[in-house]
Amino acid sequence: MRQFVVTGHDVPTTPEFSLDDLPGGAGRLDLLARCVTSALVLSHGLREDVRVHLVLADEYTVTFDGSALRNFNPDERSTAARVRNALEEREEAIGHVPVETSPGVSLSRMGFEATVETAAKAAETVVQLHENGDPAVEVDPPTDPLFVLSDHHDFSDGERALLDDVADRRLSLGPKAIHADHAIAVAHNYLDTDGYTTY
Amino acid sequence: MRQFVVTGHDVPTTPEFSLDDLPGGAGRLDLLARCVTSALVLSHGLREDVRVHLVLADEYTVTFDGSALRNFNPDERSTAARVRNALEEREEAIGHVPVETSPGVSLSRMGFEATVETAAKAAETVVQLHENGDPAVEVDPPTDPLFVLSDHHDFSDGERALLDDVADRRLSLGPKAIHADHAIAVAHNYLDTDGYTTY
Repeated sequence: MRQFVVTGHDVPTTPEFSLDDLPGGAGRLDLLARCVTSALVLSHGLREDVRVHLVLADEYTVTFDGSALRNFNPDERSTAARVRNALEEREEAIGHVPVETSPGVSLSRMGFEATVETAAKAAETVVQLHENGDPAVEVDPPTDPLFVLSDHHDFSDGERALLDDVADRRLSLGPKAIHADHAIAVAHNYLDTDGYTTY
Repeated sequence: MRQFVVTGHDVPTTPEFSLDDLPGGAGRLDLLARCVTSALVLSHGLREDVRVHLVLADEYTVTFDGSALRNFNPDERSTAARVRNALEEREEAIGHVPVETSPGVSLSRMGFEATVETAAKAAETVVQLHENGDPAVEVDPPTDPLFVLSDHHDFSDGERALLDDVADRRLSLGPKAIHADHAIAVAHNYLDTDGYTTY
């Protein structure tokens, strides 16, 4: 299984935001929505062996599970609506037990640290994308990777300290700093081609 | 300069569509909008050496020029609004002469063939992404490439015939069929890394 954690620092933690202004009023939820699509869709269906975890302001996490999702649309507005619907049921999430808010979408009361640590348990290798990391082309792709990414902000000091602690690998996908959703597309390509060897 | 042509078969050619339903009422304009973002944005600014041409139902083409764009937002709704605004001025586009509808955004009365042929004049290599193409990792990246992509539909017979005629290269980016916006992210990575050699 491939997993992606994307931390959204400015995303609302209540559902009172408009789907008409995702970049502004919803704290760049547009970017997080594109990350979900980037992680999950192929031309002809979903990547069933993928989970994406969106961390909302270090307070909640909404997880999309490719094996259980139904009627998924790739546009930002639809994905943002699923996040908003999940937030409407936030009071149902007790402790770290997730509540499923639609098929394949669940919300849990976990911030960045708990989400990364929980996802890491199902991962073989925790990957931190890093400008000074090893070039992807020189590294054999891990089988069950967890990639940890940030939104339009850098990781906070606390997030970085946790990653220094739990990451097994620092990987560079290329010389330019790119948006998280594009990094996910590139990471998939690295894995799909088995490290640029299989086309 | 890197150029991308994306042909949108079902996109409206009049501005009477809602920004609230890009996948349905606007013929998957959400996907085309993501292609624009994928082609143009970096974490800290725009790719100035990039032009993206969206072909709207083989009738009009809206071009985004990274060197001239101002106040570009990466979300689908904003980009779709620029396309809609461009369509509002479609009567101003006479012959093949484009009309600039906001800084860096222009509309011309050109379908797929005229757009590909015009863009090809500024390109060193016209690239057709193809499942049976040469693996990207084995091909030196071209300097001024034009990539031609399709929306959620395959190329039509006519489009394919034209590409067979004008494409200099058939390239495969990987073994899985992916959305056009993700293919653009992967193509940029191929070029940014100089064919997976520079990180």
